[in-house]
Formats: sequence, structure tokens, C-alpha cells
Amino acid sequence: MIYNIQIKVMPLKDLLDPQGKAVLSGLNNLGIKVEDVRVGKHITLQIDAASEADAKAIAEEAAKKLLANPVMEFFEIEALNP
Amino acid sequence: MIYNIQIKVMPLKDLLDPQGKAVLSGLNNLGIKVEDVRVGKHITLQIDAASEADAKAIAEEAAKKLLANPVMEFFEIEALNP
Repeated sequence: MIYNIQIKVMPLKDLLDPQGKAVLSGLNNLGIKVEDVRVGKHITLQIDAASEADAKAIAEEAAKKLLANPVMEFFEIEALNP
Repeated sequence: MIYNIQIKVMPLKDLLDPQGKAVLSGLNNLGIKVEDVRVGKHITLQIDAASEADAKAIAEEAAKKLLANPVMEFFEIEALNP
């Protein structure tokens, strides 16, 4: 069965996020009042696996090996409704 | 009160996603079997608003005016647990 797994990759909370700061000042210039912005990646994977747990394990391997840089980023994995 | 609102900005389903295709072939080269990949942005906003609905409205304005390009992308807004 095909599972849709989403991975959220965000900059670590303790690190500066220059892209987020740029968006923040852009929004303020547009008159939109926002306190803080952080920008990360959102990756949707379609994985053919026997179970949702298997699909999540494959997604976690993908995140660790390719998608997230643990020095600067953390990731969260979530299964989308089938 | 400060609300944490997350915005998911993804390439439209009908459009080619070259970044996703690159990740897909990268994962296959690593021996990780994945059917399809799409890569978008994940933006977390901290918004000071009177209610969650107000915060979401501000986030939607931000997405429409700056964060998402409606020609190529769609967005989804979700409130994180406080």
C-alpha cells in the first residue's frame, strides 16, 4: 500500500534563522504584525510499504541520510490520512 | 496571547517539482525506495492576536501577500498546540 508521509525539517530552535528573519522584516514592511518567523522545509513522500510503521521507518531513514542536517536542523515525521 | 501558526506551502499537484525529483533520485541512489517526493516550505509564525481565529487570519494574509506564489503553490494553515 502507498502511504503519504510528511517530514517537517526546521532549523534548530537555538540557531539563528536568517531566512526567517528576512521574512519577518518583509511581513513587517507590509504592515503585517508578526512576532517571529522560522522557515524550514516540508517534504511529502509517497512510500510503498506493508504498514504505516514501516513507511515511517523508511521516511526516518530518508530524513537522517539525506533530508535533514542534524547539526542545524531537526525533523518531525507524520503520516497523512490515507 | 501568542499563537503558533504553521503554514505549509507546497508546489501545486499538477506542476512538476524539480527539487522533489532530485531528492527522489538521491534517495533511490542511497537504496531508499520511495515512489514520489514533493518538497515545499514549512513556515512557523508567532503571532500576537486576541484569538486563534484572528491569528489564523493574519497568517492567511501573510501567506497570500508574501509567502506563497499562487501560480505555482498552494498553502495550508494550521494552529499548533499552545
